[in-house]
Amino acid sequence: MNLKNYLIKNLNFSEDTELPFKIYTIEFKKNQIITDFGDIERRGYFINSGIIENSIVKDGILKIIDFVFPGNFICSYTSYLLQVPSEIQTISLTDSKLEYFFREELEIALSNSIIANKIERHVSEILFLAKINRENEFLLLSAEERYKKLIKERPEIIREIPINKIAKYLGIHPESLSRIRKNIIS
Amino acid sequence: MNLKNYLIKNLNFSEDTELPFKIYTIEFKKNQIITDFGDIERRGYFINSGIIENSIVKDGILKIIDFVFPGNFICSYTSYLLQVPSEIQTISLTDSKLEYFFREELEIALSNSIIANKIERHVSEILFLAKINRENEFLLLSAEERYKKLIKERPEIIREIPINKIAKYLGIHPESLSRIRKNIIS
Repeated sequence: MNLKNYLIKNLNFSEDTELPFKIYTIEFKKNQIITDFGDIERRGYFINSGIIENSIVKDGILKIIDFVFPGNFICSYTSYLLQVPSEIQTISLTDSKLEYFFREELEIALSNSIIANKIERHVSEILFLAKINRENEFLLLSAEERYKKLIKERPEIIREIPINKIAKYLGIHPESLSRIRKNIIS
Repeated sequence: MNLKNYLIKNLNFSEDTELPFKIYTIEFKKNQIITDFGDIERRGYFINSGIIENSIVKDGILKIIDFVFPGNFICSYTSYLLQVPSEIQTISLTDSKLEYFFREELEIALSNSIIANKIERHVSEILFLAKINRENEFLLLSAEERYKKLIKERPEIIREIPINKIAKYLGIHPESLSRIRKNIIS
């Protein structure tokens, strides 16, 4: 899905609604870094195809905080909002195609365009809900329940994402994930 | 701080900026429920005084997900955005005074007012950043580090909030918190 169709579907925009800021496209190769630790995020992306990974480093160990799929927005959002160095890294787990806009171009539009404000508000709300969703999963579900939910919602994940990355995302050891997978199969 | 001063300070509003929706005030007694599990959130609040607690229930056990202090916005935000039954409970931990607006009155203003959009966008961003902050604390800090951070940023918490609630917030047993406190004092 491209951004225009997304906005028509989710914000009741019409085919003729003109965006008050420019949309660019970019392609990334598998494992290519989109935004690195320490970068200042100046773009907001919308995923047309591919899977993006958000990760963070604790005690020298990389922790995966999100896999993000086509039809969703992505950026290092705290860095984007506050223009501080990014604490997360976003990389393209697969070959991917993204649309994006520049923060400074959106900011100009925000000062006088209701459409720009509606989009920015929507994105902010969507990212908040995704965050809450993940928090609730960690608070309320076991690793096995989270794995089942993940493969139910995103069956392609098994094909596309290495098992050790899925384990890192679930916050468990790869061996624990292997046990969970055996339990589910048997 | 009241909402008007907050907006002057944080969104560069002037004394004369008129809000395109009505602001009401309400007082809660200590331990009074503001929004209960299952409620549909129809209001957004701004805390003038007092401390508010957000909690969630897992396996019959109450988990505290946030303490929120004066000068901040609060509501069951997922319920507010999606108009679904609230998975969290917000209660007034102390006597409190809050300003609030009705979602449906803000929604009307959002369709044609840049000011309303700016406020809603700001609140959404602030709540997102608070959520990220808490996620990072859980990912990156130990319970002891989180406790130190909490009492440094909010020294009043020791006076105002029972120790068992602080332990629940940190996600540790009260005995573990007692040990941490002894370590810090000695």
